[in-house]
Amino acid sequence: MTKKFLLNESEIPEKWYNIVADMPHKPLPLLHPGTKQPLHPEDLYPIFAEEVARQELNQTDQWIDIPEEVRDKYKIYRPSPLVRAYNLEKALDTPAHIYFKNESVSPVGSHKLNSALAQAYYCKKEGLTHITTETGAGQWGTALSFAAKVFGLELAVYMVKVSYEQKPYRRSLMQTWGAQVIASPSMSTKAGRKILTDSPTYQGSLGTAISEAIELAMSMPNCKYTLGSVLNHVSLHQTVIGLEAEKQMALAGEYPDIVIGCFGGGSNFSGISYPFMRHNIAGGKKTRFIAAEPSSCPKLTRGIFQYDFGDEAGYTPLLPMFTLGHNFAPAHIHAGGLRYHGAGTIISQLMKDRMIEAVDIQQLDSFKYGLLFARTEGIVPAPESAHAIAAAVNEALKAKEEGASKVILFNLSGHGLIDMSAYDSYLAGDLTNYDLSDEDIAKNVNQLEKIV
Amino acid sequence: MTKKFLLNESEIPEKWYNIVADMPHKPLPLLHPGTKQPLHPEDLYPIFAEEVARQELNQTDQWIDIPEEVRDKYKIYRPSPLVRAYNLEKALDTPAHIYFKNESVSPVGSHKLNSALAQAYYCKKEGLTHITTETGAGQWGTALSFAAKVFGLELAVYMVKVSYEQKPYRRSLMQTWGAQVIASPSMSTKAGRKILTDSPTYQGSLGTAISEAIELAMSMPNCKYTLGSVLNHVSLHQTVIGLEAEKQMALAGEYPDIVIGCFGGGSNFSGISYPFMRHNIAGGKKTRFIAAEPSSCPKLTRGIFQYDFGDEAGYTPLLPMFTLGHNFAPAHIHAGGLRYHGAGTIISQLMKDRMIEAVDIQQLDSFKYGLLFARTEGIVPAPESAHAIAAAVNEALKAKEEGASKVILFNLSGHGLIDMSAYDSYLAGDLTNYDLSDEDIAKNVNQLEKIV
Repeated sequence: MTKKFLLNESEIPEKWYNIVADMPHKPLPLLHPGTKQPLHPEDLYPIFAEEVARQELNQTDQWIDIPEEVRDKYKIYRPSPLVRAYNLEKALDTPAHIYFKNESVSPVGSHKLNSALAQAYYCKKEGLTHITTETGAGQWGTALSFAAKVFGLELAVYMVKVSYEQKPYRRSLMQTWGAQVIASPSMSTKAGRKILTDSPTYQGSLGTAISEAIELAMSMPNCKYTLGSVLNHVSLHQTVIGLEAEKQMALAGEYPDIVIGCFGGGSNFSGISYPFMRHNIAGGKKTRFIAAEPSSCPKLTRGIFQYDFGDEAGYTPLLPMFTLGHNFAPAHIHAGGLRYHGAGTIISQLMKDRMIEAVDIQQLDSFKYGLLFARTEGIVPAPESAHAIAAAVNEALKAKEEGASKVILFNLSGHGLIDMSAYDSYLAGDLTNYDLSDEDIAKNVNQLEKIV
Repeated sequence: MTKKFLLNESEIPEKWYNIVADMPHKPLPLLHPGTKQPLHPEDLYPIFAEEVARQELNQTDQWIDIPEEVRDKYKIYRPSPLVRAYNLEKALDTPAHIYFKNESVSPVGSHKLNSALAQAYYCKKEGLTHITTETGAGQWGTALSFAAKVFGLELAVYMVKVSYEQKPYRRSLMQTWGAQVIASPSMSTKAGRKILTDSPTYQGSLGTAISEAIELAMSMPNCKYTLGSVLNHVSLHQTVIGLEAEKQMALAGEYPDIVIGCFGGGSNFSGISYPFMRHNIAGGKKTRFIAAEPSSCPKLTRGIFQYDFGDEAGYTPLLPMFTLGHNFAPAHIHAGGLRYHGAGTIISQLMKDRMIEAVDIQQLDSFKYGLLFARTEGIVPAPESAHAIAAAVNEALKAKEEGASKVILFNLSGHGLIDMSAYDSYLAGDLTNYDLSDEDIAKNVNQLEKIV
């Protein structure tokens, strides 16, 4: 029995898939935070590389060329394997066929390099010398550190303080690739100083780190900001995952009934889903798409659809999104990459249009099934990816109850080798679930009404 | 340009290559530590799985079948990629073509799983319920932890104390896969207690950990011991590396002039080398084989050829080997897997017969070139593997000086994602080289004369 379905380097996609061109209802426009008017690419040029800004607002081109220089660097780790999880199936005694796309094989350990290489390339091509970013769990920061080194850029990373302390190896890894890493909130920016003044023991959030990274980029010449999730261009770059998986499922002679990704800002979920979703949109397929978010940060399952900021300080454009409020402070779960208050505009529109589903996963379930995956398939999953595993297991067990032979595909967005302290805590019984009350959620969400 | 040369699962070797059958001079026999008579497989049955004991002393069969159950588990990560290191070549501005076999893609992060799966399988097949082992850097221990889980065995791992403390994530990883991990020297064995009494602050060595693991295995029913390097059967299992690499070099349209592996006990060096060496023996090729050992533990470059024990306490058979003496206590370099006093019997004979070469690499050079590799090829190498990289870089720079277009192949035995504290120390300038005086070496070696 074949376990891994592999492609050759020549089969690395030559174009990214831009789902917006195919969407029955386009996402609402991004708004300028000052004028509240729809944004044009030029409005984003001060923050983002110009090509990236154009991609962000491109609603017409279904396919966008991957630059040869980026595709060449993709060869370091792509195509990634599609794997049939026979051993997990056996442990669950399920009739379901479970496949996973193994993005953990990238040298940085996650899918994040797919967009990091693209963004670093566009920044270099534009003549920039420095870039900035934020990182939560550290997956994006490590990816961009390597990508910046590849294309010869200097990089400053604002790392959410709780992760900076929980994950010292992530910091080391970024430094190994030559990046400067600053714990956020920091004293180095106005946004950081304000938060430290208001709340001196604040452990940080992605929203705050984004504010700091944007502020630094705006204050330097030849320097722009890059973002690892949420935005359309990031999802665009991640579609290489699903485009490869589509070819690989064909090699396996199957097509997924269910596609699953964990959900933080949406980049890996989008990447695995959109290429398959285009066949739903075209009418041929009825695949279900499930976003697995943590119970402690449930924007899709319990948030509201509303214009909101992407960051804590309100530097970003206003985004039409499912959100818990841009100053929502999630519990310190180990899946740091899923601790983000909002969902991207495409995902939010697809959610409104019931083209995707969302489930929330408790922290203990994510580790329970993450451990089962490690002990059956060998790979220790990132705590984030363990949410996708838990959702896949739940569907596989449902299939068993129903006696239905479902084909389930999930994205293993990254490995957890640098998150072993999280597994230590789980094995020691030190972790808990987090339950948010309706009041907790309403408190933040109610403030939003005033924004637009 | 193709960067990675991939094989299908159907091309995973069906047999291991047993170089002993082809050697012009066979290794001297292993001797019983009591009688000093040549060992028979039965003498090893109390310690090792019987099939493994037979493989250890097999001098006649050139090819040995890989059990289908083992080959099936190899599919989790094999065939591993062969990679052309274009970016490293460019950074060195060398005319040499540099290839590496990427064994870091195994879920445990190193080549060690190749033998761990085989040994766990044979133990299970024999009806054992428990196994024991030692681990230095933790690569072998993690591999065996997963392999034991795969085949349903309980495992106790004695981990060299300095690594236990330097590498807490390795311990976590073993526990994640369900193993029991004990810092060595420990109070749990006679061998451990003796050393702790003589030298209470002793930080451990592979030799001591081996003694403890053997002692535990001998004291339990249904329990045997497994070893991750040094012995012939381990090298045998590792030949899947070179057998795959041989096919992949053919895909690349080249054949190596030089094959390089880092050298601790010899398992990864043997694995990449022997399949190519058979063409040297047959007379068709003149490839050079270079073992890269640390300057702080230079058994091949500065040890003597002599019968010696494989462990500190003298529980193992007497092995004809290049050795620094079985109670040699190497400096605490971060490449814990290379801190072993001796070389296997096959390697030692090949060294005597000048069929291989050895070089010693200083710790700072290993990190200097390990970092260069990380920043060019993306993969952070294990400190052990960085020794192979340093040796490959030296050869590539020599080729540049000579204007010679050499084809260099090295084995990337593992990644360093769980060794990031070592890179932290290097980047902080906290690491040093270690120089052994002739007296340091003579002191241990002179004691050996009395053994046989």
